[in-house]
Amino acid sequence: MSELLSNIIGMIRPLDEEAMAQARARQNQLTKPQGSLGRLEELSIQLAGIQGKPRPQIRHKAIITMAGDHGAVAEEVSLYPQEVTAQMVYNFLRGGAGINVIAHQVGARVIVVDMGVATELEPDARLLSRKVALGTQNMSLGPAMTSEQAVKAIETGIEIVTAEVAKGLDILATGDMGIGNTTPSSAICAVMTGKPVAEVTGKGTGIGDKQLRHKMEVIDKALALNRPDPRQPLDVLAKVGGFEIGGLAGVMLAAAAYRIPVVVDGFISGAAALIATALSPRLKGFLIAGHVSAEAGHRLLLNHLGLKPLLDLDMRLGEGTGATLGIFLAETAARILSEMSTFAEAGVSERNKASD
Amino acid sequence: MSELLSNIIGMIRPLDEEAMAQARARQNQLTKPQGSLGRLEELSIQLAGIQGKPRPQIRHKAIITMAGDHGAVAEEVSLYPQEVTAQMVYNFLRGGAGINVIAHQVGARVIVVDMGVATELEPDARLLSRKVALGTQNMSLGPAMTSEQAVKAIETGIEIVTAEVAKGLDILATGDMGIGNTTPSSAICAVMTGKPVAEVTGKGTGIGDKQLRHKMEVIDKALALNRPDPRQPLDVLAKVGGFEIGGLAGVMLAAAAYRIPVVVDGFISGAAALIATALSPRLKGFLIAGHVSAEAGHRLLLNHLGLKPLLDLDMRLGEGTGATLGIFLAETAARILSEMSTFAEAGVSERNKASD
Repeated sequence: MSELLSNIIGMIRPLDEEAMAQARARQNQLTKPQGSLGRLEELSIQLAGIQGKPRPQIRHKAIITMAGDHGAVAEEVSLYPQEVTAQMVYNFLRGGAGINVIAHQVGARVIVVDMGVATELEPDARLLSRKVALGTQNMSLGPAMTSEQAVKAIETGIEIVTAEVAKGLDILATGDMGIGNTTPSSAICAVMTGKPVAEVTGKGTGIGDKQLRHKMEVIDKALALNRPDPRQPLDVLAKVGGFEIGGLAGVMLAAAAYRIPVVVDGFISGAAALIATALSPRLKGFLIAGHVSAEAGHRLLLNHLGLKPLLDLDMRLGEGTGATLGIFLAETAARILSEMSTFAEAGVSERNKASD
Repeated sequence: MSELLSNIIGMIRPLDEEAMAQARARQNQLTKPQGSLGRLEELSIQLAGIQGKPRPQIRHKAIITMAGDHGAVAEEVSLYPQEVTAQMVYNFLRGGAGINVIAHQVGARVIVVDMGVATELEPDARLLSRKVALGTQNMSLGPAMTSEQAVKAIETGIEIVTAEVAKGLDILATGDMGIGNTTPSSAICAVMTGKPVAEVTGKGTGIGDKQLRHKMEVIDKALALNRPDPRQPLDVLAKVGGFEIGGLAGVMLAAAAYRIPVVVDGFISGAAALIATALSPRLKGFLIAGHVSAEAGHRLLLNHLGLKPLLDLDMRLGEGTGATLGIFLAETAARILSEMSTFAEAGVSERNKASD
């Protein structure tokens, strides 16, 4: 493990129990029946614990959307040609993709990162070019990347968050783009949860049943050949991962180190969370599951992480779209905690007595 | 039935199939796998059908929060004293309640209506004073209101929406405030769905098991005494309803008449929707279930209406809080449909071929 990575992991402290206790006490004094805002109350208390403030603030919001290509697409596991990864990066930069529209609605900036798209992209001031390589290798024939590349991918995520923190950052959402990237994500999920490939592999962008069976065979072959060790998350990332997945794992670890809540998107971000939480179990407290996606295996993955999704809207786009909707709920939760009046302030009578 | 009410019901036309077909066709050309935005895509198509526009717009947003008191509180069915209804109205007007914070976050105006609070409220320019009476009668001793009052409550809702439409209105959320109002709502739900009182009665603001059993007995007594006829929704409203419930039924009917989508809040708004959709089955297409609340019976109620909730956050506050979060999702859905680039515009390759 590199020095940067072990330093960041060392910086991740437990949630601030004192701030959480104060937030909980205030929730119980606000003008509503106790607990009646349900998960928004819980979320506000988690945010207090993460930020270490009894009244957490969500003003500066960002989505980090990382793009990478995958050697495994040579096995025809996806419905779309590989060139779409690069084309969608350009679409992100021009503001025409789903993530752009949702981020605009939420008031969050989108940080687009080339972690390893298979072609050289045209230079663009809005693009962070952090290519680890021109796509991963085909994991059904050997490791997806070297150990050095795996570490570099995670470190890149850490560096990007460090730079963003300096600009002001109260909450982060993770996002991904990469044709074929449900294939390595399913491989990671199978290894880290111990579940059979068939339980954690889905239709991605919408393949049919026959192609789905083929995709499962490709993943089974990659796991049999590479034998990734679930006790060594960097080994798993190198053998059956992706550059954007490693980058997102680094993003999550760095965010936790800087006490910034991270809203995790769908299945690919979830695979990154499996790697990252294996490196630092404490990270879990800093993660918020934005939604459960329609991709088979995502619910199982979230259960394994102990995360309960905020939304269930049958989405499966990636890019950070589900997580960014989660930013809205987190901001709402924080505002409720800070801005609602207490019973005393509003002159509202409290309940009669304990009911039995 | 009054002339105003029958006119409004007559104005409710089916959803615009042509606008929906155009919206659906555009969704399939946007730069994402078809269907990958799940319920946001469906919602955008519903909005197109309601507004009669292939690209629906959500700019002017409002929550109508109606307050009323209930004679049945004399039976000790609630945890809070009746004075809280009036106190919370003042809290809404000062901006300190949960609905104020969420509405601010969503950019929606809150319209607070006194439909029948049990005390005379201090005059306030921000309050719509439309008191039908100083609270309903105790339904366990006789009808909650007269037939004339039931019609007046619904007409009041219609008049308020008519006035708001003139100010600009693209979407509406419904909200309620009224100590004890889960009791008439459960009564309405039992009558209109034909389910036993025990299945549709919950803990409201948080009563204990003993008080819950008592609450069910009060409702059973009211139904046995008044014998409301489920085929006559105005009769049900008069015998076991509430002024704010009738008002919200009118709001929903008028919104549909003016082709404005209505995001329905929790159990009390749901009871109003049961009355309103019985008066006009066509109304259902104009309703969006903002969330499923934690109140027992709400999920059953939504199933009866054929509505699938957008959110499930264990909320049970009312006021329009869950519905207002739904406005955010509706606005997001509309923006996605209008603002995302198509494959052709973005120069993104479409899928290879049909997968099998």
